Formats: sequence, structure tokens, C-alpha cells
Amino acid sequence: MVNWTNLDKVEAYKQLEAAAKVNLKEVMTGANGAERVKKYSVPMAEGMAYNYAAKQVDDNILAILGKLAEETQLVDKFAALYNGEVINTGEKRLVLHHMCRGQLGEAVIADGGDKREFYTGEQKKIAEFANKVHSGEIANADGEKFTTVVQIGIGGSDLGPRAMYLALENWAKVNNTLKMEAKFISNVDPDDAAGVLATLDLPHTLFILVSKSGTTLETLTNESFVKNALKEAGLNPANHMACVTSATSPLAKSADYLAAFFMDDYIGGRFSSTSGVGGAVLSCAFGPEVFAQFLDGAAAADKTATNANILENPAMLDALIGVYERNVLGYLDTAVLPYSQALSRFPAHLQQLDMESNGKSVNRFGEPIDYVTGPIIFGEPGTNGQHSFYQLLHQGTNIVPLQFVGYKNNQMGNDIVIEDSTSQAKLCANVVAQIVAFACGKEDDDKNKYFEGGRPSSIIIGDKLTPASLGALLSHFENKVMYQGFVWNINSFDQEGVQLGKVLAKKVLAHDTDGALKEYSELLNI
Amino acid sequence: MVNWTNLDKVEAYKQLEAAAKVNLKEVMTGANGAERVKKYSVPMAEGMAYNYAAKQVDDNILAILGKLAEETQLVDKFAALYNGEVINTGEKRLVLHHMCRGQLGEAVIADGGDKREFYTGEQKKIAEFANKVHSGEIANADGEKFTTVVQIGIGGSDLGPRAMYLALENWAKVNNTLKMEAKFISNVDPDDAAGVLATLDLPHTLFILVSKSGTTLETLTNESFVKNALKEAGLNPANHMACVTSATSPLAKSADYLAAFFMDDYIGGRFSSTSGVGGAVLSCAFGPEVFAQFLDGAAAADKTATNANILENPAMLDALIGVYERNVLGYLDTAVLPYSQALSRFPAHLQQLDMESNGKSVNRFGEPIDYVTGPIIFGEPGTNGQHSFYQLLHQGTNIVPLQFVGYKNNQMGNDIVIEDSTSQAKLCANVVAQIVAFACGKEDDDKNKYFEGGRPSSIIIGDKLTPASLGALLSHFENKVMYQGFVWNINSFDQEGVQLGKVLAKKVLAHDTDGALKEYSELLNI
Repeated sequence: MVNWTNLDKVEAYKQLEAAAKVNLKEVMTGANGAERVKKYSVPMAEGMAYNYAAKQVDDNILAILGKLAEETQLVDKFAALYNGEVINTGEKRLVLHHMCRGQLGEAVIADGGDKREFYTGEQKKIAEFANKVHSGEIANADGEKFTTVVQIGIGGSDLGPRAMYLALENWAKVNNTLKMEAKFISNVDPDDAAGVLATLDLPHTLFILVSKSGTTLETLTNESFVKNALKEAGLNPANHMACVTSATSPLAKSADYLAAFFMDDYIGGRFSSTSGVGGAVLSCAFGPEVFAQFLDGAAAADKTATNANILENPAMLDALIGVYERNVLGYLDTAVLPYSQALSRFPAHLQQLDMESNGKSVNRFGEPIDYVTGPIIFGEPGTNGQHSFYQLLHQGTNIVPLQFVGYKNNQMGNDIVIEDSTSQAKLCANVVAQIVAFACGKEDDDKNKYFEGGRPSSIIIGDKLTPASLGALLSHFENKVMYQGFVWNINSFDQEGVQLGKVLAKKVLAHDTDGALKEYSELLNI
Repeated sequence: MVNWTNLDKVEAYKQLEAAAKVNLKEVMTGANGAERVKKYSVPMAEGMAYNYAAKQVDDNILAILGKLAEETQLVDKFAALYNGEVINTGEKRLVLHHMCRGQLGEAVIADGGDKREFYTGEQKKIAEFANKVHSGEIANADGEKFTTVVQIGIGGSDLGPRAMYLALENWAKVNNTLKMEAKFISNVDPDDAAGVLATLDLPHTLFILVSKSGTTLETLTNESFVKNALKEAGLNPANHMACVTSATSPLAKSADYLAAFFMDDYIGGRFSSTSGVGGAVLSCAFGPEVFAQFLDGAAAADKTATNANILENPAMLDALIGVYERNVLGYLDTAVLPYSQALSRFPAHLQQLDMESNGKSVNRFGEPIDYVTGPIIFGEPGTNGQHSFYQLLHQGTNIVPLQFVGYKNNQMGNDIVIEDSTSQAKLCANVVAQIVAFACGKEDDDKNKYFEGGRPSSIIIGDKLTPASLGALLSHFENKVMYQGFVWNINSFDQEGVQLGKVLAKKVLAHDTDGALKEYSELLNI
């Protein structure tokens, strides 16, 4: 059995607060800095590495973080999770997204069956469906192949799958495995659906409706929007639509869909990219083999995340350093800065993953806590961000920890030499330069050109962004967020904070309002 | 003459620190809340309104903010700016982006001419060029019309124009004024250019290269990338490319372009959407008339921003409330949350505009300051964000001020009634509900379902997102950022914080490194 304890009651945390702080500028300068870059690196799955040389840690801090991991029983808690304990205490649910990509521990029997078999069974159904769509066995009423797939979903049914699609779209093009172009409709703003519809060749478009509950207002509204458009084009919606939902949802048994693929309550939306939520659209877009590689990468990273040694478990180490930055050093934000245009929407996905999981003020037993929890996450790809918000990161009045991601090789293999270097070399040179600029700063008598330094960052380095390494990258952050939730003793798997807005919006639509709500409603002509 | 004083030396600021804080939850509940919604609203240009009822202010705080505006001579400083003083003290430059859309004060003579005439002259050149492209007078070597325009630029030459294009693309479609589809290449990651090129019909594509200095590494690299692709397709790059640059740049006199349009050093990149930087691509995409409407909207908002009364000057009021939140209440971030899918990249543009302008630690004379400056800006469109990071905004351990934007009407006019309400009504109901949920919270014995409330927001309400109202919205934030810079006594118009990274990246590419820089370079195979 594991013990769930608030962070401020943990002995190692008190040691962490008392430990001498690292002067990052000092330790990253000169030969010592070179030594740190070599030493402070942990191998990740799929040939990647998590390098934390430019984080504000040293051997002493790391030792205390190791104790913290032990005292808070982090790997035991992860084991409890993948062995099927009710980790989501708020909603009283198991948490099984890891099982979409592997079996880390014991068989978990729930809802009358083995859950791993259930998830792989759905994957198989999806793979068969996608193959039939690609072969033309499943086609439109005129027997013509579908060429575009459009996911209708919001939040976890949108951000993750969308970010993953964009991450692999160009990779798939050059590897001749882009089977269908994918698009996404999410916002209840009618201009979102109308705007996407205006770009579609409807007779050759397949829609995938994704809603676990089958009751998500935005998604059902957009489904109707799309069905209307199909009917107006003389098409039968039932020939153009599949769904991903839970077996108990109103959608599950409907005859309105070409196929229904199932997930369950043990997979939260923001953790669902490796379930059918990501599986259906990504298998249609890239083929089931590519989706399987993505899952294998995630499974390999999950395996690494079970290691009890923090120096061999990058997700856990990343989590612990993040807690140190948040709770002891007092930093509020973290910027995610991938030097890869393909990861343009990856920060938006992490923003949900992290902020929705760990933006909590009560512990897992519903008791108020006296320390800060999840950070604010934002980010854009480099080098673009350098020409945007990096000014504040370098010279602003608050310190923002940074998470870089960089790859030795680009995805498309098309490059050009200008001034003796390739674009890829320029890209990599920039990320390297930024790490050192942030850490070491620069003296200047002109204080306007002075860089204070001491601004911490880590970098995940990979060979190339592929389906497998993307899966491993995603898993890294999922497990990091999970571990931080364990350290903070919060429930990272519910989201009660989204409920109040839904309740009030319904009142507004029913004109059942008074006070400020009524006045605002009038201002917006509702 | 105006006096430039550090904020902590300003008498009204001391009063602000001492003033009683507003209990937002209390004042926004019941009839008092309704009263605030009616009263705390300032008209904006183009029929919009800035409603700040849910900000942590009352009449007393507002009175002190008014004194602060007076004591720091905000409108006089703005007048100094538009009358041509050297406001950008770091680079010793005038700041004249307002002049792209109007003449607020005296004629400004610089570089041997009247600057308003210079900017309007370039606009006229651009309009003529765009009209010729649309008519086919300027066409490809086979005499065929260009159908797509691609902007090559980064930072201010990318984010603003891209956000504005996306904001108006669907509006233009339904108003039959989408003349050319626009795309953008920015990142030095070779996959960015290669990815966009893979989607283009090159013989019918016009490129617009944007670099004020004519030396931006990313942009010149991407230009070469594109030129290679054109040559490989048997096309002459000089027939497919125009540029926007300064008259003194290496590009200005080159024969490599169909046309060259000029800007100057008095328009910073992040303030350049209303100059040729935005003008060329937007005029090509939508026609010069639409771009002129956009400028008119911005001009109208600029005019409003000259009002000395803070209760009649929404940009100044917004700025002052932001300073109060940042310096007195201690909030670090601001989330920008437009309830309009068309504004999907508007927060990314504001992120640059705000963070690059005001992420500074020295005053305008290069002296260190003892108070915090620019906030961190992030955001995504609603309702999407509600299903993502709003959990933390509602129940996280830190308070994040929120900037909502909402419109009574959608752009495309295509809507659907589900459960007795349109999608547009649902969209508006959600933004209204969120404001009240954040401000008032909700009691619950289950602390996991308890909402503390007291989380401040404002909302900009418009009738519809059109070229004119978009221009006014953009101007609002440009002027807000400018006013905050005045209050903080910083120079919002330089960006020395981006230099160090550039210098170090060059060293890396020249293999002129040691220490950590060398080790990192090896890890990335540079």
C-alpha cells in the first residue's frame, strides 16, 4: 500500500527548502559548464535524451530530489495506477491510458473483462476500418474513396490528436504514408465548422465524431452542423461518419455511423491521444502501422518511467525539478519551446495536459492545501519565438523556466546551405545558443544590453521526429504531469473546475439569470 | 515637455498601493454586480465596448488611476510620440506606426520628407500592385494570374499579418472579396518552407519577402529555399517575388523583385501590421479596399486613445488596470481569450506585441528599476480553452487576469439551432458564464467542487469581427502596451534581449565555441 501525504509534510521537501541554491550562471560558465552538459543527461526512449545541465540543480539537490521520490513512493504510486487502483479519487475511476500502448503490470479486470484486451481490440477494429477506407471497401455512395478525414471533438478530443497529426503530416508526406488529409472542427463558434466545411470536398470526406460521454455540447452541435451540410449536398450523413465514444453513451448503438469505436471512463480526455480518440483519425490519416509505431514509442517511454532511480527516469526527474522550481524557487510559468515547426501545436496540447491535470487547490482527498501546484504552460516553436516573446524571457522582471526540444535531423530532408550552413544547422545552433544565453547571460556597461542570466532550461534532444519518437515525447510529458500530481498529492485526473461555467452557460441560454449574468447576456444580445 | 519618472516615484502609485482592495466576489454578486456591468463600460471605436465590471476596481481605485494617468502625463507622452519625438530612446528613433493609418497631430518631417505622405505613398503603390495582380496585368511568365500569396517573414513580419489574415479569411469568403489565399513561411526549420512549398501550385504563387533590415537570417534563408524551388520548377524567381523592406536595405534596389515596398526604422516589427508589412499580403489577399477599412478602424481607435479622461479612453484604462494588477495585486500572467475562432492566432500576436515591448528590466534611460514590468501573455480561443487550461484558471493556486473578446454576430452567417439556441448564442452564453463564474465562484461543501471566485476579467464586446473592427481591436492593444510602457517608464520600442542569442548562434555556426556551448553543439551534431 502507498501513503498519500501532502508535500509540506514530507521530510525531503523540508530539506529541499533548506538546501543551498545553485548559482546557475556560475556553474554553467567555463569547463564546469561543459562537464555539466556531459553529466546531467538521462537517456530517454527512442534514442532521445533529457539534458538538465542548465537547470538550477546540483548533486546535492538531486540527492534530495531522489529522497523526495522515495519518500513520496512515486514509482509505487505509478505501479498502483497501472495495476488498476482507483487513482482518480474524485470520480472514483481507474486511470488506464498507459494500457492503450502496453501492459506495464498485472492484468486489470474491470467492467467484466481484461482492459488491455479491450483497448487492443478497439485498436484492431480501428485498423481494419482504416484499411477498408484506404482500400475503398468503405467508400461513399458512389463507391469513391474518401480522401479527407475530419475529426469533430473538443479539448482532449481535439488538441492532442491535432498536435500529433501536425507533428507527423510532413513526415508522412515524404515517407509516402499520408493516406488522407486530416482537419479538425472543435469550437462551438459556428464560423469554425463553416470555415472548415468551406474547404472540403464533401463527397470524399469522412467525419469522425469524438465524445466519450456522447453529450459534449460543442461536439454534438458541430455534428448537427456537419450533418446539415452533408444533407444539403445530397449526401447521407450515415455514409460519412464514424464515432469514438464510450460503450454506454447514446452514440454507441446509433445507426447513424459507419462504425463506433469505444473508449471508457478510465482514459481522461487529455490522456487520450493513444486511445481511439487519437487512433481513429491518425490511423485514417497515416495508416494503422504508423499509429502502431507511435504507440510503441509511448510504451517504451512508459517503461522507462517505471525506473525507481531518478537519474534513469527522465519523466520523474523532470517532474521533480519542476516541483523544485515551482514550490521552492517560486516560478509560476513554464515555456515549452520545440525547435521543430512540426511541433507547432504541441505546446497547446501540453497546456491542456498540464494545466487541466494539475491546476488544483485541494489534495486528492478534497482537503485544501497550503502550497502552489501546477504551473502555467505556454509556448511556440523556435526560432519563431525568438522573434516574439523571448525578449521578456531574457530581460523581463520574472524568471520563466524553459523546456526546449530539438532534433539533429529534420523530417523532410529538403535543406539548403546559406552562408556555409544548412537551415537545420542554423535551427540547432539557435537552440544551443539560447540555452547558454539564458543560463550565463552577458555583462554590459550599457544596462539595456545587459543579460542577467540565471534563467533555467532543459532540453530534450532527439535524432528525428518520427511516429515512435513522438509517442515517446508525448508519454514523457504525460508521465511527468502524473508524477507532479503525485508529489503535490492532488488528483490529476478529474476537472471539476470546468463544471461551473457549463452550469451558468445553460442558465444563460434558458434566460434563467439575474444580476451581472443577466446584464452581460443583454450586452451580447443573447 | 513631458517628464519621465519611474513608477515608484509617482505619488498616485503610492496611493494606489495604499488604497483598499476590492472584494470582487462581493461586488459582482446581486444587484450591485448588475449595476457594475452597466456602469463600468467604455465605448470603443467601431461600436465596440470595453467592459471592466469584473476587474478588481471601484470608483476610488479608478480615481487614483486617473491621477496616475495625469501625473505620468500619459496622453502628453502619446502626443509627443505621434508628433515625432525620439520616443525609442534605446535606438534613438521616432515611433510612427500610428501614422500608417492617420495623422493624429502635427506633420512629422524626417529623412527629408513628410512621413505621413511617405506611408500613404507606399500604401498607394501596394494598392496599385495588388490591383494589377488581381486583374492579371502582373502575372506569371505564361500570362496566368497568381492565385496564392505567400509571405516570407518572421516575428513582427509574420505573427501580426498571419493573425490578421486568419481573422478575415472567412469574412472575405462570405463577402466575395477573398482574392488570393495567403500562406506564411517563417521558421528557419527547413521543414517549415518545405512543408508550405509542398502545398503550393508554384506557377501561380506570388511570394512577398518581408525584412526591414534586409538581413534577417531566417527570412533570407527561406527566400533562398523558395528561389531554389522556383528554379527547380523551371520558373524565374524574379517573376514571382515582391519585397517589403526599408529604402536603405540591400533588397531595396535589387532587380530580383517584381516590386519593392518601403517601410522605415520608425515602425517596429511588432507594430507593423498596418504598414506595408501587413499591407502587401493583406491587400493581395483581400483587396486594397479591405485593407483600407482595416486602417480606418485602427485610426478611429487611435483617436479614442488620445482622450485625457481615462473613462473615455479604453486603451489607457485597460493599461492602467493592467499595471494595478501587475504591480499592486502581484499577478504575473494575463490570458487573452477571444470567443471567435477567427482570432485563433490573435493571442500569439499579442504575446509578441506585449512581451517584446514591455519585458524589460531597465527604464528608458537604461537604469535598473525596482518594480515588475510586462506580464506573460498567453491564450487560445473560447470555447476551446474551456476544455483545456481553464481548470487551472478556475481552481489553480494562482490568479490569472483574463481578457475576453466576444461578438454578437459571427462572420459567416451560417448557423444552426440545437436545443433551442444557435451556436452563436451558445458561444456568447459561454463567455458570459465564464466571466461570472470567475468573479463570483461557487460555494460547495465538497472542496473539490468549490470555486473561490475573485478572479478578475474584462471583456471587449463587438458587433461583428470585420476589417474595421479588427483594426480597432489591434490598435486598442498596441496603444494599451504603449501606455503601460509609459507608466513603467520603459522603452517599449527596442528589443535588446534578442541580441545575445543571435551572437551566440553565429559563434556556434562558426564552431567558435568552448565550454557548455561546445558540448551542446556536439549533442546536436552541429
